[in-house]
Amino acid sequence: MGKDKKGLTVGKEENFSEWFPQLMLKADLADYSAVSGMTVYKPSAYAIWENLVSEVDKRFKKLGVKNVYFPMFIPEKLLSKETEHIEGFAPEVAWVTHAGKTKLNERFAVRPTSEAIMYDSYSKWIRSWRDLPLKYNQWNNVVRWEFKHPVPFLRGREFLWNEGHSAYADKKEAEKEEGKIMSIYKEVCENYLALPGLVGRKSDKEKFAGAEYTVSLEYLMPNGKAIQGPDFHFDGQKFAKVYDIKFLDKDEKKKYVYQNTYAITTRMLGVMFAIHSDDKGLVLPPNIINEKIAIVPILFEDTKDKVLEKAREIGRKLKKYGAWVDDRDYSPGWKFNEWEMKGIPVRIEIGPRDLKKKEVIVSRRDTNEKKNVKIKDLDKFVKSLLEDIQKNLFERAKKKLYDNIVEVNDLKGLEKALKNKKIALTPLCKEKKIDEKLKTKTGAKVLNIPINQPNKKGKCVISGKEADYWAYTGKSY
Amino acid sequence: MGKDKKGLTVGKEENFSEWFPQLMLKADLADYSAVSGMTVYKPSAYAIWENLVSEVDKRFKKLGVKNVYFPMFIPEKLLSKETEHIEGFAPEVAWVTHAGKTKLNERFAVRPTSEAIMYDSYSKWIRSWRDLPLKYNQWNNVVRWEFKHPVPFLRGREFLWNEGHSAYADKKEAEKEEGKIMSIYKEVCENYLALPGLVGRKSDKEKFAGAEYTVSLEYLMPNGKAIQGPDFHFDGQKFAKVYDIKFLDKDEKKKYVYQNTYAITTRMLGVMFAIHSDDKGLVLPPNIINEKIAIVPILFEDTKDKVLEKAREIGRKLKKYGAWVDDRDYSPGWKFNEWEMKGIPVRIEIGPRDLKKKEVIVSRRDTNEKKNVKIKDLDKFVKSLLEDIQKNLFERAKKKLYDNIVEVNDLKGLEKALKNKKIALTPLCKEKKIDEKLKTKTGAKVLNIPINQPNKKGKCVISGKEADYWAYTGKSY
Repeated sequence: MGKDKKGLTVGKEENFSEWFPQLMLKADLADYSAVSGMTVYKPSAYAIWENLVSEVDKRFKKLGVKNVYFPMFIPEKLLSKETEHIEGFAPEVAWVTHAGKTKLNERFAVRPTSEAIMYDSYSKWIRSWRDLPLKYNQWNNVVRWEFKHPVPFLRGREFLWNEGHSAYADKKEAEKEEGKIMSIYKEVCENYLALPGLVGRKSDKEKFAGAEYTVSLEYLMPNGKAIQGPDFHFDGQKFAKVYDIKFLDKDEKKKYVYQNTYAITTRMLGVMFAIHSDDKGLVLPPNIINEKIAIVPILFEDTKDKVLEKAREIGRKLKKYGAWVDDRDYSPGWKFNEWEMKGIPVRIEIGPRDLKKKEVIVSRRDTNEKKNVKIKDLDKFVKSLLEDIQKNLFERAKKKLYDNIVEVNDLKGLEKALKNKKIALTPLCKEKKIDEKLKTKTGAKVLNIPINQPNKKGKCVISGKEADYWAYTGKSY
Repeated sequence: MGKDKKGLTVGKEENFSEWFPQLMLKADLADYSAVSGMTVYKPSAYAIWENLVSEVDKRFKKLGVKNVYFPMFIPEKLLSKETEHIEGFAPEVAWVTHAGKTKLNERFAVRPTSEAIMYDSYSKWIRSWRDLPLKYNQWNNVVRWEFKHPVPFLRGREFLWNEGHSAYADKKEAEKEEGKIMSIYKEVCENYLALPGLVGRKSDKEKFAGAEYTVSLEYLMPNGKAIQGPDFHFDGQKFAKVYDIKFLDKDEKKKYVYQNTYAITTRMLGVMFAIHSDDKGLVLPPNIINEKIAIVPILFEDTKDKVLEKAREIGRKLKKYGAWVDDRDYSPGWKFNEWEMKGIPVRIEIGPRDLKKKEVIVSRRDTNEKKNVKIKDLDKFVKSLLEDIQKNLFERAKKKLYDNIVEVNDLKGLEKALKNKKIALTPLCKEKKIDEKLKTKTGAKVLNIPINQPNKKGKCVISGKEADYWAYTGKSY
């Protein structure tokens, strides 16, 4: 793989839509496969997913969420039960029609999401108030056969995710889950992926098909397009009524359960890669990766053994921070380029001259700064450097996000904001088809409606009527 | 779920084929789904799978194996390239033919195994000896549309597994991986699942389609049928030649790589449930589960608070061993039955009379023995009890296995052994179609050929010729 390694040929600002897929390939995160629209998750990307899963899953388990596994195939009859829900997915469903040479009696959907198959079981399992709340989750793969241009991690025909599916006896208790789950997603995205997001409710038009309301985290991509991150749906009793999920309450009455669903997907990896990286390649937050520090010995014939020995000693000491010695048979320059492209947060160079001065050169990938550090101070230095990089990436992304949000008061203001690739905080009314009109007039959509609303009134930029809320609006994936 | 809980209505010895699925449902491990042949993995079973994955994966990573994720769909053209390989799977492949309302230009197989899609990428990724060995693994779901009677965990149309796929420059180095991988599988199955297995090479007839040879671990089920556990395949250069996986070696020559594949599946959960459990329900080895000790307080109106308080105090102390207090609003007897059915290794009862004597009653699920234990000695007692249960289950399974292996020297001996539901160590020759003749004559097949061969000669029980090896033979899943 070594030989054909080359730098990125386009810049992030200059041409994001070429820069991004090029980065994905050259930083060895993904590759195209023989199936159009389905990419391979290569080891370094998959390891990040494993770490993300582990952090989120740990927190789910503390809430009492239990993992399960449901079949990947869903009988057509079952999927079609909830018409509103199926309409949202129908055009993208991959259908299994044959097994071996046999044509099957019924078609099976390859799961685009598991409500249908799970709630069919829930209706058998849930009998009494004692069985509630039931809080199950799956980590699995789903297929949505999109016909839009695929982009690794951001849009593809198969992705990995969690799908949480809870059932509650009480409406209020069910709705309380929103805060618990969304704060897990927010915390992990902030503290591990170093990604600040905008939390809010989706508009009725943009909410999940089948939900009463949807809460989402929205992110701003470098090309000025917003992208949806993790979300939470309060489904009320909609699915319960369709799939007949009833329980005998303490008052001896049969009642429908209240349900929630929630998800985070591999898309977040793409969002993270896009937001932090630069024209030299990938930039990764230390907290979400295992290999954080590349130690590169500078080897000359006469001092080789000594330098290698010292490098390894340092490697052993810093192993707890995710350090390893790159003693492969390549030139130091080649290795520097590789770790820069692959976004390793810290690089330590050690050569014979450094050794004499009992120091090493430490480079940080986020700012590309270099510093000479005494070997005796290295442990402490590296520990705080990793923390600093993590913090810096988050702060940088946060500044970028908030620098790109503008408050608008009229259509002209909105158009200008969109032209400048910004997210606009926009007054809107609840008039019918307002989302559609917004889209037609500006190309933008409602991202979400912030929970904490600005403390002032406004006129809807579309209808001119008294606005019902302020919404984040923008171009979007 | 409480009300309809009942004991098992058939015995394990009496009617295994009814007892086993009944146990799976009543111990709340699995449930049937709307898709025939695909079962739901319920939380307690899925948690075991998570623990098994975690133990195996940790060991894989120490060997330098990296996890990846490849698309679940495989283009028909790609799958058909390796004819020998595809023949093994063709009758069981589920085919995707439509997306939404669109008929697809080509059919996609839902992955029955990933050689085809992975090696297509390997052929692009592997260029030089520096890229080798390449040791990738996936934990994923696969579909094989079997038409045989499905049994939860043991035989179904979808299962979860790991599929390891390595490529080596050197044949010997490749073959060395066998010992490393098989000892991981063996160790985890022995020390966590408490399952002893028979390790050996598959006969040519029984090996993986496409492999040069297959090594497996075989287990004996309570009904006298053997079942295959984890396996390892040395594929030589077979796939490399079909999928064109070549590298430039140090001598500047282009060469095909040598490849291995290996897998462990959710089937092992079924094997574990079947082997250890009894007529009262599930029996689980402590090492593979999280919830190991159920503390059941015996509550009367006047002493309720005191007893509960003590139970919780004990619960906190024993939390490190996986203890929790079952303070639900059910009767103690109901709880005893539940934890017996669900195979919790240790149950601690504490009531007002015990409290006065400063003791509790400890029951172990493997032998159903009860013992009064002073509260002050409980920590130490429980720690060693869990170790003892783990050890006892393994030893019991081992005795059962080896008590049921007999050496036979002729066809009559073999027939008798099979009638008595035993595995037979059988002399066989390598004559063509010998496996088929064995099957026709006796209904048995070659399970595997032990690596450590008995130090004596024998006559093939089928052909009467000088035997080439001793093989484990038996009825099999």
